[in-house]
Amino acid sequence: MGIIVQKFGGTSVGSTERIRHVAQRVIEEKERGNDVVVVVSAMGKTTDQLVSLAKEISTYPNKRELDMLLSTGEQVTIALLTMALHELGYKAVSYTGWQAGIQTEAVHGNARITHITTEPILNALNEGNIVVVAGFQGITSEGAITTLGRGGSDTTAVALAASLSAERCDIYTDVTGVYTSDPRYVKAARQLKAISYDEMLEMANLGAGVLHPRAVEFAKNYRVPLTVRSSMEHVDGTYIEEVNTMESNLIVRGVAFEKEITRITVHGLTNQITSLSSIFTTLANHHINVDIIIQVQTDENTTNLSFSVKDEDVRETLAVLNEHQSSLGFEKMEAESGLAKVSIVGSGMISNPGVAAKMFDVLAQNGIQIKMVSTSEIKVSVVVDQKEMIRAAEILHEAFGLDKVEETIAAL
Amino acid sequence: MGIIVQKFGGTSVGSTERIRHVAQRVIEEKERGNDVVVVVSAMGKTTDQLVSLAKEISTYPNKRELDMLLSTGEQVTIALLTMALHELGYKAVSYTGWQAGIQTEAVHGNARITHITTEPILNALNEGNIVVVAGFQGITSEGAITTLGRGGSDTTAVALAASLSAERCDIYTDVTGVYTSDPRYVKAARQLKAISYDEMLEMANLGAGVLHPRAVEFAKNYRVPLTVRSSMEHVDGTYIEEVNTMESNLIVRGVAFEKEITRITVHGLTNQITSLSSIFTTLANHHINVDIIIQVQTDENTTNLSFSVKDEDVRETLAVLNEHQSSLGFEKMEAESGLAKVSIVGSGMISNPGVAAKMFDVLAQNGIQIKMVSTSEIKVSVVVDQKEMIRAAEILHEAFGLDKVEETIAAL
Repeated sequence: MGIIVQKFGGTSVGSTERIRHVAQRVIEEKERGNDVVVVVSAMGKTTDQLVSLAKEISTYPNKRELDMLLSTGEQVTIALLTMALHELGYKAVSYTGWQAGIQTEAVHGNARITHITTEPILNALNEGNIVVVAGFQGITSEGAITTLGRGGSDTTAVALAASLSAERCDIYTDVTGVYTSDPRYVKAARQLKAISYDEMLEMANLGAGVLHPRAVEFAKNYRVPLTVRSSMEHVDGTYIEEVNTMESNLIVRGVAFEKEITRITVHGLTNQITSLSSIFTTLANHHINVDIIIQVQTDENTTNLSFSVKDEDVRETLAVLNEHQSSLGFEKMEAESGLAKVSIVGSGMISNPGVAAKMFDVLAQNGIQIKMVSTSEIKVSVVVDQKEMIRAAEILHEAFGLDKVEETIAAL
Repeated sequence: MGIIVQKFGGTSVGSTERIRHVAQRVIEEKERGNDVVVVVSAMGKTTDQLVSLAKEISTYPNKRELDMLLSTGEQVTIALLTMALHELGYKAVSYTGWQAGIQTEAVHGNARITHITTEPILNALNEGNIVVVAGFQGITSEGAITTLGRGGSDTTAVALAASLSAERCDIYTDVTGVYTSDPRYVKAARQLKAISYDEMLEMANLGAGVLHPRAVEFAKNYRVPLTVRSSMEHVDGTYIEEVNTMESNLIVRGVAFEKEITRITVHGLTNQITSLSSIFTTLANHHINVDIIIQVQTDENTTNLSFSVKDEDVRETLAVLNEHQSSLGFEKMEAESGLAKVSIVGSGMISNPGVAAKMFDVLAQNGIQIKMVSTSEIKVSVVVDQKEMIRAAEILHEAFGLDKVEETIAAL
């Protein structure tokens, strides 16, 4: 008998009817003889509605006050879920973030958890309670309410699982697990039985929005066994665990993609040593996220630089560069929008140097032009024309045998 | 320069537009050079909506969880009002009940404030902030969120004013002040410039629902100068203060009334010494509130007893008495419903023994039969036929010169 942490997102608790359904899922785990800690998000669109209310008063609401406002969303859910558990005859108690001892930095809107005081939850579990905790929120050492930003409830669940030494952290979502690619676009996409933290991290960062990267990173650092599973259907989910416990037959585990990418190219950068850092520091100061960066030395004194940004940031990126042209020291710049990024992810490729080559080859054979390339140990990303994105994903999905993954994992 | 506590109820903060309006009223007080602490209720019907949500899950929701749920209502308002103050260029900070140091008993749904730790608010005021506090809520020594029950936000405001040694506590409502009688029924009713705590307490208990009796009692005990005033109109309100600072020309200060009263009469109670307490202990155990009690000794061995209850409690009262007839020891009982209570209130009547006599005389001259009488030092209540309630109120209002109160208070 151990502790299981369950997390249910906004859709799963979107109505009182759905909350009653969640209560059933919680009780199933309790009936298996486990101590259960449940982390919940705000109901459905509550957070958006609260933000709208704030916007009626202020275009840029104070972040401390916005946290004060938004944290009420999860507080409503924990009270209702706890009532639903009582209705079904189970002992349960709800805790806000601060009551659950979730300490954070003094940063509003995007705080990181610094420490969890586990006594309140452990005491409540020892008294036989199911403990229902508000996700997405914590408290500073000064006693101010903070929120954890995007993916905050996932992070709460994983952090609680880590500090309570939970056996498992189950993330309940509106999909049944992690897929080899986005099944809405890639017909052949199949659900994975297991995936490593690093692979999940790459998949999550690449827009496979099942689980927030912060939560995955936290789980990886503290070795929290994670599952992603459906809150609606009683089917097996996907395990996220250390790579050595997994089969590594499959070199590539998933194909992720992301559209609306622009490639910016800066020509004739003269002062090589400082200009690169100058450009990216300047962009960072304007909160522009740069993804892939490629640098090409054209001759002894000048360098060409390409990097990718989101389409929505292009206008500001060009304005910032223009403004600093003399200090940055470059000749001219150009932008190509309407691009997309397609990536293959898999721990297996660390020991398989031919993976990137095979990817380029397959795309070339199908007449898909590669505009940029970026690689990590377990990922290769290419930037292609947006019109070719889905086709590239489907081709790669098939070329790396992901459509056959079900048979492979059956051997696990 | 002192501290002013302002309290705005649910109607006053019923929309973001109204919250912006409240922010203006707060700033006016700040601009007069005062430190301002604002206590707010939940927006409009929010509390009712949250209760409905709970009822969708549970007919009798757990009280701790209901407090967890309901306390979010005020938390939304404090965040929005604070944002509105920022928008207008003022420093402001919001505090929930627990952040404001409002300690209560460990009773959910109807907790009493036991202690207020004033450091957080005083520190925030010293830093130049307007402090916005969630009404109606506090925290137990165990760290659980409690609510204060009906009139809770009024109580929060008065308790804060007392513990902060505020100069004044201003209760902003949807009426302009305290009236000599309910102006919706008694056309001649006029607003009072001032009223004593005790008079207000009698008026509040008698259904003049401007201010909750708990809050008035708290204000009286801690000598907190109160005003009741309009959140909509810029007009003078009513001061509630110690009687010796007020004119005492006016013997009667107000006429209050309440309908749907039933008189229960119990005949032939034998064992006088214990039967009275037995009856009322039994009724109290069934949460039946008894108001006026009259006991008449009929001969050496038996007593008749009459008391009044609300119409809605009649059925249960009779059932309880029936059930205990043998142990209580009485012959028979009867009930007369469709009655009403009309009361005159005024500190001046302490030194004017003729007031009650005048009241009875005036009613008799107008053919209004008195069914029961109850008196306190500053109040005389009569029970009459409900059909005569408004007429009795109007006759008494005129007989005691309350329609001329404006001229009287002009002399203050």
